[in-house]
Amino acid sequence: MVKIAVDAMGGDNAPLAVVRGAEAAWAEKIAEVILVGDEAVIAPLLKDRSGIEIVHTPVSVDMGESPSAVLRRKKDSSMNTAFGLVRSGRAQGAVSAGNSGAAMAFAIFTLGRIQGVERPAILTLHPNSKGSVSALIDAGATVDCRPSHLVQFALMGNAFAQHALHIRRPRVGLLSNGEEETKGNELTRETHGILKTLPLNYRGYVEGTDLYNGTTDVVVADGFVGNVALKVSEGVAELLIDFLKERISRSRRAKMGYLLMSDVFRSLSKTGDYSEYGGFPLIGVDGVCIICHGKSNERAIKNAILQARNFAGIHLNERIRDALQDHPSQTRSKEH
Amino acid sequence: MVKIAVDAMGGDNAPLAVVRGAEAAWAEKIAEVILVGDEAVIAPLLKDRSGIEIVHTPVSVDMGESPSAVLRRKKDSSMNTAFGLVRSGRAQGAVSAGNSGAAMAFAIFTLGRIQGVERPAILTLHPNSKGSVSALIDAGATVDCRPSHLVQFALMGNAFAQHALHIRRPRVGLLSNGEEETKGNELTRETHGILKTLPLNYRGYVEGTDLYNGTTDVVVADGFVGNVALKVSEGVAELLIDFLKERISRSRRAKMGYLLMSDVFRSLSKTGDYSEYGGFPLIGVDGVCIICHGKSNERAIKNAILQARNFAGIHLNERIRDALQDHPSQTRSKEH
Repeated sequence: MVKIAVDAMGGDNAPLAVVRGAEAAWAEKIAEVILVGDEAVIAPLLKDRSGIEIVHTPVSVDMGESPSAVLRRKKDSSMNTAFGLVRSGRAQGAVSAGNSGAAMAFAIFTLGRIQGVERPAILTLHPNSKGSVSALIDAGATVDCRPSHLVQFALMGNAFAQHALHIRRPRVGLLSNGEEETKGNELTRETHGILKTLPLNYRGYVEGTDLYNGTTDVVVADGFVGNVALKVSEGVAELLIDFLKERISRSRRAKMGYLLMSDVFRSLSKTGDYSEYGGFPLIGVDGVCIICHGKSNERAIKNAILQARNFAGIHLNERIRDALQDHPSQTRSKEH
Repeated sequence: MVKIAVDAMGGDNAPLAVVRGAEAAWAEKIAEVILVGDEAVIAPLLKDRSGIEIVHTPVSVDMGESPSAVLRRKKDSSMNTAFGLVRSGRAQGAVSAGNSGAAMAFAIFTLGRIQGVERPAILTLHPNSKGSVSALIDAGATVDCRPSHLVQFALMGNAFAQHALHIRRPRVGLLSNGEEETKGNELTRETHGILKTLPLNYRGYVEGTDLYNGTTDVVVADGFVGNVALKVSEGVAELLIDFLKERISRSRRAKMGYLLMSDVFRSLSKTGDYSEYGGFPLIGVDGVCIICHGKSNERAIKNAILQARNFAGIHLNERIRDALQDHPSQTRSKEH
């Protein structure tokens, strides 16, 4: 059975939510779990140790610590030890809900990058109005991108959509401020020129609405822009839900209506709930690595373990390596 | 009474919706209106010509035309003639729902920029969870910004919030991929360094969620990033509404609930309805200029005329000029 290393000390609800998530993953026969962290804290929380192993380290990374400082001083942290277990082959994937900047830095440092990848990217999945999901790559790992980075994100996102989402010819779009070729900025214009020459189902520039209207399977962006898109989405969804709650609370009639529509609202909040996805894969590092939301609960951790298991099972990283090796010359920076 | 020049031929629903919007604005004593366009088409649509003047030109700009071509060949278009009426002082503001790229190009060409402004910006207003609105500047006028451009956007947005939104000390934030100083990209880091030195109520980096959670009055961004934020917002709102509609249509119980909650949904769609705002001011050009959505209906046009009237009434452009003249040295490009 696949083994997943989990940073037991990472996240606002660690270690309890992480331990419970690991137990749930084992109970559902998703994977065996290696919990990495302070054994004296973790062991008493475990109801049953079957399917779960503990790798002890007393060091953990705090949420507020700067990634560069952590990278120098905390190589023996629970987070980095989990990545080390993937590196050495003892685990087939790693999950952390800890300090995400530090997790990315350690993942790159310890796992290295897939050959042909200059920068890693976070891939997030977004429900769309066609009832499927669209992938956004990069949602925040790499800022100040060069065209070659975006081209690699497109190839990695395409491979992800083919193998993890089972889309034969993923529709790939470059996020821009309008669909016309006259739109875009310096970075997108140069990237657009390269993407047109690659054997992708490339649709050219897409807009922010295309992340949600089902026209595009893979939306490619610089990590700065992608992160703004991700956080704006959260903001709008929260605003609409707050608005509905506030208005419903004002009227008895609306409250009755709400009760009749409770199934609808339940499925709505499920659609927008990050714990359904569990976490986001860090794509481009040489090992399966799932970064979870700091607020992850038991369910999110379990689903992140499920994701890590699935990506290991389809050999996602080998697929990405193959995808990049097919197009080496156009896809690298001239400086490299 | 204030006179507003309106491009009668611009927008998907022109000229009828524009003519009706102009009549409504006059009926509500918002402003006198100069309708600019083909008199033979416009005149028969008018129910009553009191309060409304027609300036005839047979040339109009199509939605698909490239701004640069239009700028060369269609200086006598209804759109540009409307801006010319502001330039000459015959009107105190202009409104167009036509090709927005062309409208921006003509506004800059014909009205010029306010002294101290290197690039104009579109300012959009977004409802937030505190029941007020937050301004986003720039939502798409200028891409590939330099730090000086973003600094000017911050000063213009601040003046707008003070004088148009009546906020004494607007909270200004720079849109970034995280709140920590270690976040951001090359552009935001340099901009952040300048903004800290200015006498603004500057709160540093903000995230996409801050456009909707009421923590920030003015969110400053490059026009590429701002446009992505705007379009993603539209996409999420449409997705949520589609989702609710689809689920409601599936169940009789939910349909009954929907009827009881109809007031709530009506106020929700009003909150998200662009026609409530009418249009977006193009900030930084030397004259009041409101750019409307291509889909603008009668109500949107009327509200855009109301906005133009209000901005003319508070002498918004003079306020912006003053705001920029107070800080000349730090706020200009070194190349200028």
